[in-house]
Amino acid sequence: MSSIFSKIIAGEIPCYKIYEDEKTFAFLDIHPETEGHTLVIPKNEVDKIYDLPEKDYAALMNTVKKLSAHLEKVTGRRILWKVIGTDVPHAHVHLTPYDETWHHGRELHFTDEEMQAIADKLKLN
Amino acid sequence: MSSIFSKIIAGEIPCYKIYEDEKTFAFLDIHPETEGHTLVIPKNEVDKIYDLPEKDYAALMNTVKKLSAHLEKVTGRRILWKVIGTDVPHAHVHLTPYDETWHHGRELHFTDEEMQAIADKLKLN
Repeated sequence: MSSIFSKIIAGEIPCYKIYEDEKTFAFLDIHPETEGHTLVIPKNEVDKIYDLPEKDYAALMNTVKKLSAHLEKVTGRRILWKVIGTDVPHAHVHLTPYDETWHHGRELHFTDEEMQAIADKLKLN
Repeated sequence: MSSIFSKIIAGEIPCYKIYEDEKTFAFLDIHPETEGHTLVIPKNEVDKIYDLPEKDYAALMNTVKKLSAHLEKVTGRRILWKVIGTDVPHAHVHLTPYDETWHHGRELHFTDEEMQAIADKLKLN
């Protein structure tokens, strides 16, 4: 069965897309801890990030690096990373623009229009 | 000025070492959120992980992958990753064996002997 993230990649579930290439995909987290909170995932549906085949892993971590630098440039904020993964069994890296009010597990609320505006601002390709 | 982590690598400050190779180093976090909480760092002292030169970054993420699989094997627990980095300006990846009582920012306390026993159990080389 496809994970919810594989359905997002396939376009079966809508998302606020930030980036896509051959092996990776990125979109806004719909439970954002800060504005611009993004998830980066491999297209290869594997539960634990450290179980990814070498090439998929390298591609994922390259996208994480590139996108972090880009998000920092656009938001002016340091980018935090988290890999927890006890919710959706499809490896995903949280990229969270840090602000001094941030704390783990917080959830901000934005309207659809606000989320789309954030995605438009952060989009890399 | 050398970061506290560069001093640990140089042996000027003691640590519970888990792993070392040409470009990377790993040791127990002395403020562990769970038993086995480990920090993986590049020997190249750079503040933000996504600013590391490509080869140092690839080496670091390879160690993170390899060590996560090893820690999971030894502890029987899923390994979480975090990169926050607002404390010490030397990039570091937290590897935390997950248990159901874990929460971000928790701090467990172990004696020196207990920490050494944990390090001996988790050591990769």
